[in-house]
Amino acid sequence: MTENPLNALMNPRSIATVGAGNNPTKMGTIQALSIIKDGFKGKFYPVHPQDKTVLGHKAYPSVLDLPEAPDLAVFIVPTEMVLGLMEDFGKIGTRRAVVITAGFRETGAEGLALEKELKEITRRYGIRFLGPNCIGLVNTAIPLNLTVMPLMGPPGLLGMASQSGTYITQTLGLLRRRGIRFSKAISLGNEADIGINEALAYLGEDNETRAIALYIEGLQDPARFLEIARRITPHKPIVAQYVGGTAAGARAGSSHTGAMAGPDHLYDGLFKQAGIIRVYSVEDLYGLGWALATQPPLKGKRIGVITNSGGPGTAMSDTCNAGGLEVPVFSKELQQQIRPLIPKQGAYRNPVDLTFFLSAEAIGLTIPELVMKSGEVDGIVLHGAMGTGFMEELYIHTGEFLGISCEQFVEFAREDLTPALSLPGKYDLPFLVSSFLDENDDFNRGYREYNVPVYDSPEKTARAMNTLWEYRQIQQRAPAENSPLPPADEAAAALIAAAVEQGASILDEYSSKRVLACYGIPVSDEGMARTAGEAVEQARRIGYPVVLKGCSSEIAHKTGRGLIHLQIKDDEAAVRAFEAIQEAAGEALPVLVAQMVRGDRELVAGALRQPGFGPCVMFGLGGIFTEALRDTVFRMAPLDRVVALEMLESIRTKELLGEFRGMPAADRAALAAILQKTGNLLLLHPQIQEIDLNPIILAGSRPVVVDALITV
Amino acid sequence: MTENPLNALMNPRSIATVGAGNNPTKMGTIQALSIIKDGFKGKFYPVHPQDKTVLGHKAYPSVLDLPEAPDLAVFIVPTEMVLGLMEDFGKIGTRRAVVITAGFRETGAEGLALEKELKEITRRYGIRFLGPNCIGLVNTAIPLNLTVMPLMGPPGLLGMASQSGTYITQTLGLLRRRGIRFSKAISLGNEADIGINEALAYLGEDNETRAIALYIEGLQDPARFLEIARRITPHKPIVAQYVGGTAAGARAGSSHTGAMAGPDHLYDGLFKQAGIIRVYSVEDLYGLGWALATQPPLKGKRIGVITNSGGPGTAMSDTCNAGGLEVPVFSKELQQQIRPLIPKQGAYRNPVDLTFFLSAEAIGLTIPELVMKSGEVDGIVLHGAMGTGFMEELYIHTGEFLGISCEQFVEFAREDLTPALSLPGKYDLPFLVSSFLDENDDFNRGYREYNVPVYDSPEKTARAMNTLWEYRQIQQRAPAENSPLPPADEAAAALIAAAVEQGASILDEYSSKRVLACYGIPVSDEGMARTAGEAVEQARRIGYPVVLKGCSSEIAHKTGRGLIHLQIKDDEAAVRAFEAIQEAAGEALPVLVAQMVRGDRELVAGALRQPGFGPCVMFGLGGIFTEALRDTVFRMAPLDRVVALEMLESIRTKELLGEFRGMPAADRAALAAILQKTGNLLLLHPQIQEIDLNPIILAGSRPVVVDALITV
Repeated sequence: MTENPLNALMNPRSIATVGAGNNPTKMGTIQALSIIKDGFKGKFYPVHPQDKTVLGHKAYPSVLDLPEAPDLAVFIVPTEMVLGLMEDFGKIGTRRAVVITAGFRETGAEGLALEKELKEITRRYGIRFLGPNCIGLVNTAIPLNLTVMPLMGPPGLLGMASQSGTYITQTLGLLRRRGIRFSKAISLGNEADIGINEALAYLGEDNETRAIALYIEGLQDPARFLEIARRITPHKPIVAQYVGGTAAGARAGSSHTGAMAGPDHLYDGLFKQAGIIRVYSVEDLYGLGWALATQPPLKGKRIGVITNSGGPGTAMSDTCNAGGLEVPVFSKELQQQIRPLIPKQGAYRNPVDLTFFLSAEAIGLTIPELVMKSGEVDGIVLHGAMGTGFMEELYIHTGEFLGISCEQFVEFAREDLTPALSLPGKYDLPFLVSSFLDENDDFNRGYREYNVPVYDSPEKTARAMNTLWEYRQIQQRAPAENSPLPPADEAAAALIAAAVEQGASILDEYSSKRVLACYGIPVSDEGMARTAGEAVEQARRIGYPVVLKGCSSEIAHKTGRGLIHLQIKDDEAAVRAFEAIQEAAGEALPVLVAQMVRGDRELVAGALRQPGFGPCVMFGLGGIFTEALRDTVFRMAPLDRVVALEMLESIRTKELLGEFRGMPAADRAALAAILQKTGNLLLLHPQIQEIDLNPIILAGSRPVVVDALITV
Repeated sequence: MTENPLNALMNPRSIATVGAGNNPTKMGTIQALSIIKDGFKGKFYPVHPQDKTVLGHKAYPSVLDLPEAPDLAVFIVPTEMVLGLMEDFGKIGTRRAVVITAGFRETGAEGLALEKELKEITRRYGIRFLGPNCIGLVNTAIPLNLTVMPLMGPPGLLGMASQSGTYITQTLGLLRRRGIRFSKAISLGNEADIGINEALAYLGEDNETRAIALYIEGLQDPARFLEIARRITPHKPIVAQYVGGTAAGARAGSSHTGAMAGPDHLYDGLFKQAGIIRVYSVEDLYGLGWALATQPPLKGKRIGVITNSGGPGTAMSDTCNAGGLEVPVFSKELQQQIRPLIPKQGAYRNPVDLTFFLSAEAIGLTIPELVMKSGEVDGIVLHGAMGTGFMEELYIHTGEFLGISCEQFVEFAREDLTPALSLPGKYDLPFLVSSFLDENDDFNRGYREYNVPVYDSPEKTARAMNTLWEYRQIQQRAPAENSPLPPADEAAAALIAAAVEQGASILDEYSSKRVLACYGIPVSDEGMARTAGEAVEQARRIGYPVVLKGCSSEIAHKTGRGLIHLQIKDDEAAVRAFEAIQEAAGEALPVLVAQMVRGDRELVAGALRQPGFGPCVMFGLGGIFTEALRDTVFRMAPLDRVVALEMLESIRTKELLGEFRGMPAADRAALAAILQKTGNLLLLHPQIQEIDLNPIILAGSRPVVVDALITV
């Protein structure tokens, strides 16, 4: 495996900037200031054509004048200067760069040409770079901040790679207020060189990163992304937000990074396949990511709910329940321990409701500790620990009567929260907090310092716990069972080649199913007939009842044209049906005589190539409800057995696959094999564009492909 | 109509407190302080057994010593004192009270008895009250604040009624930071007297309330709630959060107000029927409620997206699209106007992306005004207007080089935002803002003063716009077509009475369908047969093919016992089937001979009485998928025609009801009539517990009830 270029790029010992000067209202200068002010300990070499010093550091008139080849070159110059300067850095031996400068691919054809030239130069020198059109990076371990906003604060545990620079820049203040801290953050820009896949692999390997957050507007290589992500998710959680699936979203996205968006349902399937937790807002990307980064595993479903008010307690309980978690009634013993600690009108069975009882010790220490050490819960959600923020609110009205200043009052009423704040870390259980107070409250500030996430609503707190549970399921997934692709079947290849040679865009139903059968996909017993006599012969061989269908590669949609005759029960009916088909077709038409497969449960499967996405497999509910229900799921081919089995459980109507209304459970192994093989077909036969198995009927437990169409 | 008791209760000219003293760390005192400090302009009479003054106001040793009967009595005393004091207030002539004191129904049997006594006393004196176990009320118009937290700020436009006191108390600071301001807020407590229905009616009538937010853990009278809400929603939006539908949630809820929770799907149906927008978090209750309270109607789908960064622009566009809104490409003309105002790498087609271009005027005034006055959009979402909050962030690093203080820098860089802030109010379009800065930023603070909602994420901003669209649909609902209940049918009543007299818990299929037919519900043509000869006779009358089913009130589930024979095509088969049924039953069993109704689309409907909820009608997808899909919706009976038609469009698989795979569209009027009549049946015949129509087959477009069961 080649070394990830980000290893060096994220950890430079020396940095040169081009474009930073001494005017602190210019973006380039502000970015250089972030390097200096946020504590970068390595060497800093500003290049400046006129000024002798930049921000108090000795400046160099040109790249070629630098005293050494810096580990990292940072470009904040106008677009037209990038190429020449990159050439200079190449010459002196710099091998990593961050190109913040915009004006490339995202601006149109001219910019695209420029970007190609840039890649040409960097390739020549072996330079690996982030951008162009990115906002920089953050590495809190060195610490290094290349963005325009101040970072500050201690290192964190959340690694981020973002296709929008905003989400590692404009949000830094917001994240600081919420106590969410990056380990590393990478703005990807146009991904002309280093892309999201390398960023993901890097964060996956990074020991300081405990969870990864991805903001995605489009993937250049989804297959590689899947491979990398799937290796990471069993031991490190990944959350991702994908936007851009709609036309306006794509327009907005392409306007700033030129990333290519794809259909939402494919991304959805890709994330599930990779074990990535999908979120639908940047707030959740950070907030749920932070819970995953900071909290120990949620080992079971049992949640203890502690609150100072019924409303938030109810909301947290309900939301946990909706996520598959339980809020079990405490044992009598635990109830008896809690009861004396709370007011009479409080609740102690779980949820514990202290009502508006203002003991920081009871809500923050005594009660949570009792619950945590009881062994009766696997995680805690807590609302209503209120400290100085609440006192300040109280002082607004009471101040006049207290006769002391607000500071004095707060100081007087303040309790030592250290025992409470350090409690969560003492037990190996997730502990999540809800508070309506802001970051000035000492409880909230303290929890955040102790890496206990604090959310501004009970529902978000509970949803974060649900996310920990979701990740637990991902961790416990069966390991991938990758088996090598089988060799391409020669008979199948011949059938496909024949169709292509004839200039057909599809294989007729019979040929389609023969191709499937070559790979062991179960299809209905059937044969072709060119005369009524042959039809009877086939029918007898198969056994009545049979179905007769007019069959040619020119006829894709047979129903409604009199070309399908079901429930043929004897020779006479077979002859009649054969003749009726000839008449309806108005020409001699070969007829497919097929076994009449019986079963009330119909499924669909298929495979397709999506531009920019690669071969995907589809599975869903079939029959007349297919269109109305749109209950289909997608995964990328090849499918390993585990993923194929997971697909079966991913449809909303999965209940149909179990024992159902007196019908036996579906043979899931056989269904999974059909999905795997359907995906493999696309990989083995590049001429195949699309495969459509519709319906697959469950004959008892056994799936049989009853109709199929291969598009070449 | 009787006068709403809240008219007087919310607007007292004089208030007496019992339980407030001079210790500003006691809750009772703090609540009295809220009256005084938040600016109540009427008379304030503290009752105190010892102190001569309370919080600087003359105190009275007992209620009987008060100089006049106060308009409102506020109880903050220990539980055991409430009854006696209420008696005293009754004697002196006070007719409105707020009982904040807890310890009643919510604590168990003893408390419940106490609550009954309290109601007895208040009834005797004609006193109407809020609580007990509530947290008070807020009326920003007087202004009056009875809660323990400071209110401050100008009056707002959002009216709130809450079954959790927390949501009008603990959140006041949070709401202040977010710029969300109540018109009125009512904590309902145990609802021993005044309940949520009166609160809702009051807020519906209140001119200062532009939108209503409800926090609900259970309804005592859902039918009345529906009636009131449905009258309000065409002209004033209502948002509601319902929690407590799960076991733990209900436990948490009952522990604090004793409200009765009910199945979530019934509440969901009730809200839809009433035109109430349901939300799933308290954050949305406030945040979306505030957009509804402050913004003009969203008259069309076209949204203009303005941003200083691609990520938020993409997220807002995508989220708007997901909610059914459009982000149309601007006309060439408008594009040409915008283009010179933004940097080269920006976007101007919609979304408008200024990139990181820091002109408050461009993003806050010039560009939005161009877009608003173009007539090309119906609403605006904006991200990235940054003022002093951003400057303060910038100063962190640049301060040293600027050589001025942060205050000086901010003052120097500050722009006059008034033209930008007053812009949204000049056009009759919704205008919603997203910002990652906090409430200290002058843009955010200013927008909030101008009633422009500011959200802390792009997705929330877009979701708020989607909610305005959702409300627009509600406003445009057809008006209710209430028709009086028809008289009870005598033949139907006789059939039901006969079953009840026989001690049967169900009506057999034949009788069930005869009851339905009495009301004109279309059922399959059928007749009873007690001999094989009668079976043949019925079959001939109906016309083959027919179905034969063993039929008695003791047999509810017929399949699997050999009691159903489908597709009977001639006399001989009818005789065979009749005999087979007798054999399978092992006794003489009457047989129902019914028309074989053909159709691929099966639906279900029904009606049931839910304890504490009243008669409800169910409609959904039928057939073998019923259980797997659970695609059912509920509404309360009686259904008017509009609601019955809406029910049809509320199932996920509603596409099946249109023209579908060569089948004609369902006769929606006939289906709606079935639903209305099914609901009426429960209202007309109190003995009926449940009606189950499963399946209803669409024979072409015509719905026919093929199997039915009435439980008595």
